[in-house]
Amino acid sequence: MHKPVSGFSKMSKQDKIDWLARTYFSNNTEAINILRQYWNSDTKLQQLHDDFTENAVSNYYLPFGIAPNFLINDRLYTIPMVIEESSVVAAASNAAKFWLNKGGFHAEVFSTEKNGQIHLDYFGEKNVLFDFFQTIKPRLFDSVSEIEKNMKKRGGGLKDIELIDSSGSLDGYFQLHCTFNTRDAMGANFINSCLETIATTLEEECLGYEPFLKNSQPPKVVLSILSNYVPECLVKAWVSCPVSALLKDATDAKVFAQDFVRAVEIANTEIRRAVTHNKGIMNGVDAVVVATGNDFRAVEAGVHAYASRSGAYASLTKATIENEEFRFSIEIPLALGTVGGLTSLHPMVKFALQLLHKPSAEELMQIVAVAGLAQNFAAIRSLVTTGIQKGHMKMHLMNILNQLEATSEEKEKAVRHFVKNTVSHSAAVEFIKKLRA
Amino acid sequence: MHKPVSGFSKMSKQDKIDWLARTYFSNNTEAINILRQYWNSDTKLQQLHDDFTENAVSNYYLPFGIAPNFLINDRLYTIPMVIEESSVVAAASNAAKFWLNKGGFHAEVFSTEKNGQIHLDYFGEKNVLFDFFQTIKPRLFDSVSEIEKNMKKRGGGLKDIELIDSSGSLDGYFQLHCTFNTRDAMGANFINSCLETIATTLEEECLGYEPFLKNSQPPKVVLSILSNYVPECLVKAWVSCPVSALLKDATDAKVFAQDFVRAVEIANTEIRRAVTHNKGIMNGVDAVVVATGNDFRAVEAGVHAYASRSGAYASLTKATIENEEFRFSIEIPLALGTVGGLTSLHPMVKFALQLLHKPSAEELMQIVAVAGLAQNFAAIRSLVTTGIQKGHMKMHLMNILNQLEATSEEKEKAVRHFVKNTVSHSAAVEFIKKLRA
Repeated sequence: MHKPVSGFSKMSKQDKIDWLARTYFSNNTEAINILRQYWNSDTKLQQLHDDFTENAVSNYYLPFGIAPNFLINDRLYTIPMVIEESSVVAAASNAAKFWLNKGGFHAEVFSTEKNGQIHLDYFGEKNVLFDFFQTIKPRLFDSVSEIEKNMKKRGGGLKDIELIDSSGSLDGYFQLHCTFNTRDAMGANFINSCLETIATTLEEECLGYEPFLKNSQPPKVVLSILSNYVPECLVKAWVSCPVSALLKDATDAKVFAQDFVRAVEIANTEIRRAVTHNKGIMNGVDAVVVATGNDFRAVEAGVHAYASRSGAYASLTKATIENEEFRFSIEIPLALGTVGGLTSLHPMVKFALQLLHKPSAEELMQIVAVAGLAQNFAAIRSLVTTGIQKGHMKMHLMNILNQLEATSEEKEKAVRHFVKNTVSHSAAVEFIKKLRA
Repeated sequence: MHKPVSGFSKMSKQDKIDWLARTYFSNNTEAINILRQYWNSDTKLQQLHDDFTENAVSNYYLPFGIAPNFLINDRLYTIPMVIEESSVVAAASNAAKFWLNKGGFHAEVFSTEKNGQIHLDYFGEKNVLFDFFQTIKPRLFDSVSEIEKNMKKRGGGLKDIELIDSSGSLDGYFQLHCTFNTRDAMGANFINSCLETIATTLEEECLGYEPFLKNSQPPKVVLSILSNYVPECLVKAWVSCPVSALLKDATDAKVFAQDFVRAVEIANTEIRRAVTHNKGIMNGVDAVVVATGNDFRAVEAGVHAYASRSGAYASLTKATIENEEFRFSIEIPLALGTVGGLTSLHPMVKFALQLLHKPSAEELMQIVAVAGLAQNFAAIRSLVTTGIQKGHMKMHLMNILNQLEATSEEKEKAVRHFVKNTVSHSAAVEFIKKLRA
């Protein structure tokens, strides 16, 4: 076994690669050439990418694809999607086209409040802590005035600080729950800077607070950090149309709508289906999140936790048929940015944002939610029809025959006929018609 | 507003880009050159990447970084990490080094069973369905014999099919729950092929089953698909050492261990912290998942749903102090592959797997779990110390002073001294010692 390496992070890129070659590839130049063949020929551009993270030795390509024809709130979009999984971009494009002449997608942002917490240990008298908090609250606000100066100019900033008693769940656990508006920035750094400053101010104020000195139990800051759980940063997207507009044949359309609704109900009932159902949604969501330079781990964590908020992990989408109207919707929490972070650094991210008409964070939330909904629509459509069509429709044949009140003799003939012929509602109707003619 | 585009997917890459340029960039060559500057100069290699998905117009770079010095089950690894977020690779490397001389990381795979379902609607008599299932079960197994031929040679295949009555949760809902062993393949295509074939066989068997013809209510296949919820595909990783070995100063070590445990307890209590806590874990997990050509959406969905399995979304890691021993562990479901899919196509994935000594799927599960645990260790360590050190330690000063039974006068002097000096347990001890000398 080779020896541990010291001072690796301080080595040059070339030295790192030489070490890799010696240690793991018996100086196999072929393996090392793989790294080199992915370097960009523009050394300045390559340096930019190398600086994004630590110990970068090459670039990992993900396909940058595009899905056109998304009509969202009456505006046409071509959506950039970065994803390695085949058929995701195709499915998105198909769903976009399907809804294009049915009013397209609609989306609405409900709220954009972000949050972070200062997690405290406190074992003293509760009213002493609450009194203390009320006393120093204005000073906590004052302490971030310098940090939030620019954010305030843009209409954002620290919104509120609330002291929450969570000691019922965990002995001695209290939180300062802080809420923020970060406008078009994702705002992680801003929020964390505010939180650390508020925490420091809190600690300083503790030192001079007599009641704490007396009972010698001031609150202790365990940690301060933003939350990726953002249920107050919520977007909804939906499509709807008359059931009869879903497919050419009215009866096929009705069956399709019912199967679709049933498939979503199942995802809402069974966790093993819900997880895969939501995974498909995230295929669409993440592809746009990555393309626009946002953090997909943050989005994934927030969205899946939201899916479990009722106590049972469930579907993120809903499908209904009411008054002959089919409606399919998604509601997800999304904390996204269109300024700051990678958005101003990664040339492909800049390209993606330009392609999307330089959206605000709220507009991007809508686009991302639509991409998730479109993906789920395409997946369910495929699953309840072509995905399992061969078997499914043969099975379904019996339902159609029953609807047509076919006799046992008619059923037998139909079953034999459709062994080699594709089943559809209209084909079954026609077959029985001919039999009866 | 521009018009929708027709036949886009069938256009050449160049025509797609021309359309983008005309439609969104006023023929701005600069924007379009961004796409081109990321093309690989090796056209055959570029074609390979273009073929991964649909409508690819360029490559999206993610940094391919490496984190050395991971001692896992007594073997040294350098872990490939693909991630755009700064400090993730550095944090992993630091955690690896921290545990290197403390026995390193340990990991164990508990089980590798995968699953998929055929979701059924059935409104007839239950015993009729159960009798039917028992009758045809051998035929369902037979129907996949051709598909599982190669998998069986490798020791895998369809393991069991179970009929589950879920009609208590959703009227008329039943499932064929199928379990699989897919060896070193992630196995999505294998499982889905099996499921669709089983579903078709089921439907065919329905047609000839008298009791169904009589009551005219055969089961209907709604959809068939693998599950990304894989709690039977479970891996655990852990580190442990005497509390006193955590830091040079014994008292500092004890405080650190206690703060660390408390931080994990908080993540286990409060969803807003749990989500961010687990998000940090997934920074490590996904970076390796992506580098090794696995599907991070599948992993994310399965892991976060697992985090919510108790009914309350909670921490994926646990930390304890027992008999002066600090122990930190993670338990997550991971369905990964080291053969098939992107693993045999993407040159950087091949490189990553070579770097990892061409691991089996089980070995990769262990490596990925360790990457997640390491990330979480680094994050919590930073959060309870340096991350908020300035404030935190000043606050903590009072606890130290109380431990030392400092008088009010001594406290006042200490507070004044440490406004400008860095607080540590040893520094505080020394300061009071001097005062008392």
